[in-house]
Amino acid sequence: MMNWHEVDTYAKQWITEAGEKIRESFKEVLTIQTKSNADDLVTNMDKETEQFFIRNINHTYPSHKILGEEGFGHKLTDLEGIIWIIDPIDGTMNFVHQQRNFAISVAVFENGIGKLGYIYDVVHDELYHAIKGEGAYVNDARIPDLRDTNLSEAVIGINATWVTENTRINPQILAPLIKDVRGTRSYGSAALEIAYVVTGRLDAYMTMRLSSWDFAAGIVLIEEVGGRLTNLEGKPVNLLEENSVLVAKTKIHDEIISSYILKK
Amino acid sequence: MMNWHEVDTYAKQWITEAGEKIRESFKEVLTIQTKSNADDLVTNMDKETEQFFIRNINHTYPSHKILGEEGFGHKLTDLEGIIWIIDPIDGTMNFVHQQRNFAISVAVFENGIGKLGYIYDVVHDELYHAIKGEGAYVNDARIPDLRDTNLSEAVIGINATWVTENTRINPQILAPLIKDVRGTRSYGSAALEIAYVVTGRLDAYMTMRLSSWDFAAGIVLIEEVGGRLTNLEGKPVNLLEENSVLVAKTKIHDEIISSYILKK
Repeated sequence: MMNWHEVDTYAKQWITEAGEKIRESFKEVLTIQTKSNADDLVTNMDKETEQFFIRNINHTYPSHKILGEEGFGHKLTDLEGIIWIIDPIDGTMNFVHQQRNFAISVAVFENGIGKLGYIYDVVHDELYHAIKGEGAYVNDARIPDLRDTNLSEAVIGINATWVTENTRINPQILAPLIKDVRGTRSYGSAALEIAYVVTGRLDAYMTMRLSSWDFAAGIVLIEEVGGRLTNLEGKPVNLLEENSVLVAKTKIHDEIISSYILKK
Repeated sequence: MMNWHEVDTYAKQWITEAGEKIRESFKEVLTIQTKSNADDLVTNMDKETEQFFIRNINHTYPSHKILGEEGFGHKLTDLEGIIWIIDPIDGTMNFVHQQRNFAISVAVFENGIGKLGYIYDVVHDELYHAIKGEGAYVNDARIPDLRDTNLSEAVIGINATWVTENTRINPQILAPLIKDVRGTRSYGSAALEIAYVVTGRLDAYMTMRLSSWDFAAGIVLIEEVGGRLTNLEGKPVNLLEENSVLVAKTKIHDEIISSYILKK
């Protein structure tokens, strides 16, 4: 039987330490490489941070598996056992352009069930964290359960990409939603945008293409405040593949799917 | 001859004090009224903060005129004399929904020329400020001159509203821009988004409808770092009317206007 409070203590310690290293790195010149396309920037800090987590996890929990954005973890074909799912810097473009509005995202799953979730807004020193069944917190403050909102009073996170021509979704599907809500925002870090939904600062967030390291911590957090995270068809996300993601308060979650995405 | 350093000292003092009051107000319940439409929320704090500035300005500089979002200032028909242009809380929807991502924006103009500009990110305690001809600063740090970027490497601030059906602009005009840039963001406070352009965190920001209190401080700031603020046709904005606004690094400013907005 795993001692989750012990794992939680280590996870927080490593996240805090990684955050300090990242803040220090702003004083150095960043060496930036281009990965698969210009939107997918990667810096030395991404790789170093992931390797820092892997070294610590391997040393402390050698039987645990690791799924990380930078690919230094394991190639997994199933979700058996205990798996750490890590995005060392979620929002790399913000990291490079702004040196803010990015996060470290870490989750620990056991046999496909989310047990621990952490999203760390490094620059603002805000750690959103949860142990399954014990509530969600930002730093030391308990995050209250979400209260339902009407769509007309909702502020939702959605990037303009998804309502203009793109390869993932017909822009006409979501365009009416932009008109019907009170306002839209786009921050450029899925993990932080999910943390914003968890804290009620956004009423929903959606995007068409995320890997599990972008939202795994968010799954644990959103469940603790009574919200919902699925793909855009309302089905469970798959941690081993890319997914569309809709995370929202439950009533708005239902409404976005039934009145916009699956509207006949 | 006005002593602008003295005015600057008073302005910073009042802005700091107003920011403290706003941060304290988060502990109280906010009484929210609806102004002309659901997107235009106003709180007690907007009004109280504007009145706080007006009392101080009237007492210290009784000959100065005041233009404020909440309408407690003067009704102006020209820009003669010294005019304070004040948005007590820019990003009211963020203020209400998030208790962050809003700003106090204060500018002082003389005969239509911007002399002093202040954008205060209240929650993060970051004051962007400039005296005309003396450079722009965030807190105590000088903001460097902007360096040109290619559009394909640019991150721009634009809300999804302007690329979906709306009453201000044909969504087809700006939709190609969304595809051509590296990424888009939307933060919901024009003043902060302009401050992000001033600091190079965004390469451009555009919107279709702003009043002068939303961008007047931004005019002073952007000029100090070598950027440009005009309406979407590249013409000077009018401080006494609503305007479209494009604020950007100069090369990108030219390119957005010539290759997208005025494209034949």
